[in-house]
Amino acid sequence: MTELFTVLTPPEAWRRLREHWQPQVVAERIPTQDGLDRVLAASLVAPHDLPTFPRATVDGYAVRAADTYGASASLPAYLTIVGEVAMGERADLPLGIGQAVVVHTGGMIPPGADAVVMVEHTQMIDEANLEVYRPVAVGENVIQVGEDVRAGQMLLPAGHRLRPQDIGGLMALGLTQVEVARRPRVAILSQGDEVVPPAAEPGPGQVRDINSYTLAALTRRAGGDPLLRWGILPDRLEALQAAARAAHAQAEIVVFTAGSSVSVRDMTARVIGELGAPGILTHGVSVKPGKPTILAVCDGKPVFGLPGNPVSAMVIFQLFVVPAIALLLGTEAPLERRIRARLARNIASQTGREDYVPVRLEQRGGEVWAEPVFGKSNLIYTLVRADGLVRIPLDSNGLSEGETVEVGLF
Amino acid sequence: MTELFTVLTPPEAWRRLREHWQPQVVAERIPTQDGLDRVLAASLVAPHDLPTFPRATVDGYAVRAADTYGASASLPAYLTIVGEVAMGERADLPLGIGQAVVVHTGGMIPPGADAVVMVEHTQMIDEANLEVYRPVAVGENVIQVGEDVRAGQMLLPAGHRLRPQDIGGLMALGLTQVEVARRPRVAILSQGDEVVPPAAEPGPGQVRDINSYTLAALTRRAGGDPLLRWGILPDRLEALQAAARAAHAQAEIVVFTAGSSVSVRDMTARVIGELGAPGILTHGVSVKPGKPTILAVCDGKPVFGLPGNPVSAMVIFQLFVVPAIALLLGTEAPLERRIRARLARNIASQTGREDYVPVRLEQRGGEVWAEPVFGKSNLIYTLVRADGLVRIPLDSNGLSEGETVEVGLF
Repeated sequence: MTELFTVLTPPEAWRRLREHWQPQVVAERIPTQDGLDRVLAASLVAPHDLPTFPRATVDGYAVRAADTYGASASLPAYLTIVGEVAMGERADLPLGIGQAVVVHTGGMIPPGADAVVMVEHTQMIDEANLEVYRPVAVGENVIQVGEDVRAGQMLLPAGHRLRPQDIGGLMALGLTQVEVARRPRVAILSQGDEVVPPAAEPGPGQVRDINSYTLAALTRRAGGDPLLRWGILPDRLEALQAAARAAHAQAEIVVFTAGSSVSVRDMTARVIGELGAPGILTHGVSVKPGKPTILAVCDGKPVFGLPGNPVSAMVIFQLFVVPAIALLLGTEAPLERRIRARLARNIASQTGREDYVPVRLEQRGGEVWAEPVFGKSNLIYTLVRADGLVRIPLDSNGLSEGETVEVGLF
Repeated sequence: MTELFTVLTPPEAWRRLREHWQPQVVAERIPTQDGLDRVLAASLVAPHDLPTFPRATVDGYAVRAADTYGASASLPAYLTIVGEVAMGERADLPLGIGQAVVVHTGGMIPPGADAVVMVEHTQMIDEANLEVYRPVAVGENVIQVGEDVRAGQMLLPAGHRLRPQDIGGLMALGLTQVEVARRPRVAILSQGDEVVPPAAEPGPGQVRDINSYTLAALTRRAGGDPLLRWGILPDRLEALQAAARAAHAQAEIVVFTAGSSVSVRDMTARVIGELGAPGILTHGVSVKPGKPTILAVCDGKPVFGLPGNPVSAMVIFQLFVVPAIALLLGTEAPLERRIRARLARNIASQTGREDYVPVRLEQRGGEVWAEPVFGKSNLIYTLVRADGLVRIPLDSNGLSEGETVEVGLF
């Protein structure tokens, strides 16, 4: 029996994993318009200035600013209209002294002009002549060439997760294809003689598979690609070994989720240990729930043995697998939503152990309160009834009612 | 010229829209495993208890608790082992007085047993007899039938956005299909004689399309389905009218993004006005950037005319179109990430106007600071360089350096 297994703190377990694992980002080229939430594999540089021509920001008249100096309602400047720049057309008519050209918002400013007078500050005298009632400064109501971005300027760094405006910014520069990190493939192996597929009617003693689906959804949310093709594995050594080898070959990360009985844990450990060097790094982590967790690196790939309890499996997945996916995406920062709240009751803990307590968020008198949802870690609805998890650090023996805590949202 | 257009505050504009628009949620049935981030169209009720049988939470022996009362290391209780419950098998052997059955974590408790003694608190005397060193209470180390969820209990309400654990919870009950709100179709019509597709090389006076792609990505993020099939429309009445009619027929929401020049705005307003009653509700909103925004309800569908400036278009989309998508999903609360930060410098504003100022977040001395990114609303890289927007309320004339503000993250 391996009851006396080594238990590491979460930071120490992670340090060991990183010592033996060098994540490699694999790049792929995709259309920029499909890039939402994808992570850049290389930094991007502006291929040209943006805009490429000076543009009016208002409707009005392109002018030489000097021609308007001193203009007022009582003493207007007089200018001659020599043409109009249609939208999307080159403004090739050069502007002479005392001349003005009609321009529209977003249109090109003709050569010789250095400012735009708003139409509201003018009056046409006749078809060709204009009174201007306010002076404009050089550059006023104009976007200059390169004012948005300059050629050669760094746009976005490698590891950046693309947002809607980033996609727009790249499109503006004609960058219609982009190098992003391929989604890391995470093989999820659900194991247990008592586990049946959700569509089946479980007999007495049988339960439906939960973890395959929660972990697949967490993988997707973290930017990974879940592989579930191995179905539910029986607690039988040969079947596990075959599936483990295939999963290890096809994925960048392998995740087992198996029952927590000692015999099953021993079998999972043996199968993981056989996948390659250096093998198992720890048989347990000081986390509640989730202590009986196996962390391994086998032949260059991280392998995780998660407890079968759905709450433990989700907590440990968030703690170790999500950051591993982030590293394979080339980013240190997993996408996580956090909120500050006040704790609605005392929670006891032990020093030397990290606790994760599910909480429900409630609005009370303009403040957000976190109400602990106590429940056994075998009960999936403990998490369904919760909005997030509060972490009680290693060195704390509990949190007090009224304390402000950070809640990691699901 | 419609320079003297009506301008409404954002709450008033939204109120008018809601007065004329009754959003209808359209349900569709999908596999639960594809349900991440989808919104439930109907509330869900547990079809049966979970678990359906009493389960052990530890490795050990199923017993009658009364048989262990008073047991200690010096005075153990003696029990006879009468069998073992294998994982996934029915425990049909009824337990008599003074008897014990081997059970594994997650396994079924046999009839007659009411507690489980942990293996660590026992010692086998011979193959059939056992010493127990600690008493167990009734129900100890057992999950009772229905302890996770009871038959008939409400699981999740309509309007709930499915998270990983929800998918697991539904699978646990055999709910492998689920009724969710169909993704609202949002037609995005990009308009402008100066606008060319991103893959094209723009000539002088031409710019690449940005808004189609930022607004499509925002639509996806909000849970909608962007329709971009109309390409870039010229500033020509007949072409606009035809596209507008098709978009209005095919989508639940229609969004125009057009240039901000007066002649273009007039043309867009005319086209929107012709789409149906009651038509245009306001020609402007007191928001900076984004004032020249058209809100309309045409024949039961909301229609938005957004400014062509990419920053204005994104701000107004977040303010009005994202909540409209949320209503069609049957939820009041759009998915939005907010963070509190301290403002790094003063920002002036005008009362009677909502301002949205792009900010970059920076860590300084353990605090998050929001540094305003000033830039014209025509410059997409103003938003690329920012992490979120700070809202300055209608009734405020600015925010002060050091003040704590809420930042809506992109």
